[in-house]
Amino acid sequence: MDAARLHEYTDEMSMAFSFEELPRPEPERSDDIVVRIEAAGWCHTDNHIVHGDFEGVADINLPHTPGHENAGTVESVGDEVTAVDPGDEVVLHPALTCGTCRSCRLGEEMYCDEHVFCGMDTDGGFAEYMRTSERSAVQLTNVDPVEAAPHADAGLTAYRAVKRARANLVPGDTVLAIGVGGLGHIGIQLLDELTAATIIAADIKDEALALADSADHTVNLRDEEISELVDTVTDEHGIDAILDFVGSDETLDLGLSLLKQGGDHYVVGYGGHVTAPAQAMVGLEINYCGTLCGSFTELQELMSLVEDGQIDVRTVEYPLAEINDVAAKLEDGEIQGRAVLKP
Amino acid sequence: MDAARLHEYTDEMSMAFSFEELPRPEPERSDDIVVRIEAAGWCHTDNHIVHGDFEGVADINLPHTPGHENAGTVESVGDEVTAVDPGDEVVLHPALTCGTCRSCRLGEEMYCDEHVFCGMDTDGGFAEYMRTSERSAVQLTNVDPVEAAPHADAGLTAYRAVKRARANLVPGDTVLAIGVGGLGHIGIQLLDELTAATIIAADIKDEALALADSADHTVNLRDEEISELVDTVTDEHGIDAILDFVGSDETLDLGLSLLKQGGDHYVVGYGGHVTAPAQAMVGLEINYCGTLCGSFTELQELMSLVEDGQIDVRTVEYPLAEINDVAAKLEDGEIQGRAVLKP
Amino acid sequence: MDAARLHEYTDEMSMAFSFEELPRPEPERSDDIVVRIEAAGWCHTDNHIVHGDFEGVADINLPHTPGHENAGTVESVGDEVTAVDPGDEVVLHPALTCGTCRSCRLGEEMYCDEHVFCGMDTDGGFAEYMRTSERSAVQLTNVDPVEAAPHADAGLTAYRAVKRARANLVPGDTVLAIGVGGLGHIGIQLLDELTAATIIAADIKDEALALADSADHTVNLRDEEISELVDTVTDEHGIDAILDFVGSDETLDLGLSLLKQGGDHYVVGYGGHVTAPAQAMVGLEINYCGTLCGSFTELQELMSLVEDGQIDVRTVEYPLAEINDVAAKLEDGEIQGRAVLKP
Amino acid sequence: MDAARLHEYTDEMSMAFSFEELPRPEPERSDDIVVRIEAAGWCHTDNHIVHGDFEGVADINLPHTPGHENAGTVESVGDEVTAVDPGDEVVLHPALTCGTCRSCRLGEEMYCDEHVFCGMDTDGGFAEYMRTSERSAVQLTNVDPVEAAPHADAGLTAYRAVKRARANLVPGDTVLAIGVGGLGHIGIQLLDELTAATIIAADIKDEALALADSADHTVNLRDEEISELVDTVTDEHGIDAILDFVGSDETLDLGLSLLKQGGDHYVVGYGGHVTAPAQAMVGLEINYCGTLCGSFTELQELMSLVEDGQIDVRTVEYPLAEINDVAAKLEDGEIQGRAVLKP
Repeated sequence: MDAARLHEYTDEMSMAFSFEELPRPEPERSDDIVVRIEAAGWCHTDNHIVHGDFEGVADINLPHTPGHENAGTVESVGDEVTAVDPGDEVVLHPALTCGTCRSCRLGEEMYCDEHVFCGMDTDGGFAEYMRTSERSAVQLTNVDPVEAAPHADAGLTAYRAVKRARANLVPGDTVLAIGVGGLGHIGIQLLDELTAATIIAADIKDEALALADSADHTVNLRDEEISELVDTVTDEHGIDAILDFVGSDETLDLGLSLLKQGGDHYVVGYGGHVTAPAQAMVGLEINYCGTLCGSFTELQELMSLVEDGQIDVRTVEYPLAEINDVAAKLEDGEIQGRAVLKP
Repeated sequence: MDAARLHEYTDEMSMAFSFEELPRPEPERSDDIVVRIEAAGWCHTDNHIVHGDFEGVADINLPHTPGHENAGTVESVGDEVTAVDPGDEVVLHPALTCGTCRSCRLGEEMYCDEHVFCGMDTDGGFAEYMRTSERSAVQLTNVDPVEAAPHADAGLTAYRAVKRARANLVPGDTVLAIGVGGLGHIGIQLLDELTAATIIAADIKDEALALADSADHTVNLRDEEISELVDTVTDEHGIDAILDFVGSDETLDLGLSLLKQGGDHYVVGYGGHVTAPAQAMVGLEINYCGTLCGSFTELQELMSLVEDGQIDVRTVEYPLAEINDVAAKLEDGEIQGRAVLKP
Repeated sequence: MDAARLHEYTDEMSMAFSFEELPRPEPERSDDIVVRIEAAGWCHTDNHIVHGDFEGVADINLPHTPGHENAGTVESVGDEVTAVDPGDEVVLHPALTCGTCRSCRLGEEMYCDEHVFCGMDTDGGFAEYMRTSERSAVQLTNVDPVEAAPHADAGLTAYRAVKRARANLVPGDTVLAIGVGGLGHIGIQLLDELTAATIIAADIKDEALALADSADHTVNLRDEEISELVDTVTDEHGIDAILDFVGSDETLDLGLSLLKQGGDHYVVGYGGHVTAPAQAMVGLEINYCGTLCGSFTELQELMSLVEDGQIDVRTVEYPLAEINDVAAKLEDGEIQGRAVLKP
Repeated sequence: MDAARLHEYTDEMSMAFSFEELPRPEPERSDDIVVRIEAAGWCHTDNHIVHGDFEGVADINLPHTPGHENAGTVESVGDEVTAVDPGDEVVLHPALTCGTCRSCRLGEEMYCDEHVFCGMDTDGGFAEYMRTSERSAVQLTNVDPVEAAPHADAGLTAYRAVKRARANLVPGDTVLAIGVGGLGHIGIQLLDELTAATIIAADIKDEALALADSADHTVNLRDEEISELVDTVTDEHGIDAILDFVGSDETLDLGLSLLKQGGDHYVVGYGGHVTAPAQAMVGLEINYCGTLCGSFTELQELMSLVEDGQIDVRTVEYPLAEINDVAAKLEDGEIQGRAVLKP
């Protein structure tokens, strides 16, 4: 089979990948499955992988095939697989997990003692076929693989953050979503679908804010004073929850100035630091909450929303053969929406 | 009546207060009560008040009577008071709250729109009598006011933190309590009473650790490597919850290195800063949670435990007349346990 | 002022009330308010009151003015009222509560030790003015009193049930609402607004089902086999939550046959009995959950939804003078939607 | 190997089982394990099996080996087993579950689509060896198999009920445990360990009540008026939660008369019916909650308590060869505590 391979870390995105003919993977364990990839989303993490930023952090062995947002058709299955059959269309949770540790047994596979991330610790979906486990596969009904793939990571991460926030949000509350990019534009739709809170969307680009259809208010952080808008919208009570899809020093500071007492700042994006005086955190009784990619059952829940047509992801399709072009364009911010590669 | 009055901010603790004869307060509002103070705990916050550290932060008008950990006997009541009668023994929640804003109606009076803190924003309990509201009074049954007073703030703050942590703690989990001082030594007893988690108590003084009877393990952070103890106790899984009664830069860092994925660092003490890379917070999915003094109903719950004899606070009694001596000794760390003044 | 008075219990609805000139009520307690009634919803409970069914159950003294779904304008206020001002438009929670018992302090006023229900234990809103407490008043912004009034009880009861169910409902789950009447047609809209669950609406009248616009599926329990529909919709897994707005023997039985393991049957309507073998309840691990009128803060939350135009109640307005006609028509089921009387 | 076999349903307990030499089971699936049984608790359910009461309910094929409370040593393992090694001491969760359905993935294996109950749907532990899955095995550390075995079902069922109740119990609340038998005497210890609620234990036998050491109050339902005790203990507020380990018509009625508004009646034992007017359930806003055997992770949590020596089960050991005597004695109520058979 054909696979896009990274042979060495590089900053030259347009020459990052070369194509190789590799043996088609086969099931090894009794619960393995092999999936014919029909759509593989390109995530900003993939840029980091190409640059070598995950060297020493993840268990990447060059040459390597990235790709962790995958959807396709089950090609073959191990001896004891029961969850899917060959021919089933599936979207794949990015984690390979043991199923027996306490975290897996609690349904929190992202905390698995033996956690392996596809397309990072193992070969991923920028290839014709990929081996994974039946434990990763959510069946698709009436959803195009191209539409499904970006939900495996971007959508799922947004979903988990929104689900956590939702538990404390009641009608009349106000939520602030910062960053209307890949995750944020999904997150805002989920907030609208799952809560009755008033939604403020913030970004530094008007083009991004244009994607925040479901928000009740938008604010460009470069041009406007967000605290004034918050005072008006919340009658000076402050924000109940912040979903921070950016995670820069600047956005992480907003919790301290904008949250209501008892409010939560969900840290989804990263890059910056939380820097908060304990005295202020205590006085305001606010919480900074790291939030990760969702669990398998959360991917099921999200796909149920997608099947009902309630979440709209902006995708742009490319043949896998153009992966180097796509990587270069994304590095330069020239693609709007999620790029999805089709092997 | 006699009252200990602070006329100007000072660093000379031994001369901070002078005694004045003031008119005995009377109920003003229909729900006011006047309490004859029998015990008033000295809190480290009172040192800060004397130094002037709350100038501009709280609404202190000199001359001022501090004292926010109060217990005594109801002397007189306003026209429409029904919750208590003259002669009832009570412990007093430190907050005066409106009872009508949404926060009050939700039972979260510490978030009250009109929140006033007794002994800070109004005259407190270092006097023979104090005016407050029936909304502050929890009746005492078989509890000595001296034993009750420190629970109004120190105990109540520890209780709220432990109650929040308890919601996620199951048998087999491990909790780390940092700082075995006024709050910490109560907090550890509460953890033992309310959870079945394994308790590690940490401090930098062996005398303090000697108070952590209910802990399963103790560690002196000056002398020992806490990460090794945590690895042993948790089989390398990490801590489920940290109750940080210190809140220094150093202790606030421990969340990042010791927590299990999904763990919580409750920030109770303050002085330092939380400084955490968003990437680590996301990868570990940990939470930094500010936590404040408890609500009125939480004080009821705590007093129910105290009535059952399940919480043992170390108190040292002094006549109110010796307040300057006590203040000076506390400034120098020369009193073990909670000093309680008796007017 | 004019008031519609019930002088004796009767089955002759068309002659139940006579009009009397009574003194306009004045604030008595410091937190009392007097409201000029602009809209008072007629609830089926009022039929029961007229018949005398609440004799011995509630504290009704004849002659009596019913009416517990009230909205209007604040006319005068007691000495210490701060929550509202004369001239404010308000909707009134039906309960008068003490504000000091533990239940009130927890925000669960319906459990108040001194609970009094307006229009039942005291004179209600079928009059030009009514005395209540500031604790009952939720301010209206951009909502017509006629639209607001039915939410004080019918809407609020549906809201609490839906809010409880929502905590366990995730996308992909299925909820069954039984009874598309006064409460049910609001409840279904709330389910749609607050959850992403698939909604099945059941009734025995097609006209009622016609009001269930927000449901994904409707079923006439007289004509169709509901278990077949449930099997199809849930892939034979069963219903996650039932909201039973009817509460007859027949509908209460449906939990045992239709719920998924771990599911909840919320009992909102009443009249029948829950009759369930303990063995089946254990084996299925299902719950029968009584659910009552919501709290004050829940009324705030509901009114926030109403203000946003997201809940549509079918109301029919009548002058208060026609109360006997209205009562008779309602007894005979001749009014579709909620009758609202305007004094 | 030797196995105690039931060849036909009978009421003659003393002749129920005959011993047969069967082939020792071997792992079949890749995740199977075979365990040398060292302790197998006799549960009242086994009496029902012998009588044929589960004919048509469970999937029992005669001849059959019952026994679902098992502990022992891992003898051999399937190809891909990682959770345990031969030689490990283990206690076995009674359910065999698929691990891939949504319920399993959520950690609620008792709801598994393919749920099989050992010793009922398959051969159980009244034999020298038993085949099960690594998914059932919780490793033992410093716990004798005889002490561990009864926790696999009796202890685990009590644990789940107590864990659910605990979520709503705060200090000052009162809990009523009905039935101080096999489950109840464990449940009362768990309530003491995991909550600070006041515990009332009720039974109809004084010998049983003698086992309720951890209760604050005991009441013999035959001799005393429980409502008076409840009024005294709760200051007429009522019980916050009932744990009904009996589940007879009589005990199931107690919820309606003894619960505080908003209280919960957990149905653990069975035999009788819940019969409750919807009007009372609504007015009191009480809940009847079926509760089942706990999950795998709950068994881990419980064993953590047992390892810490905090739960004391009364066991009486017998050689497996005496199973017929034991069955007969249990049928006649002649054994105090849990009978554990040792092959």
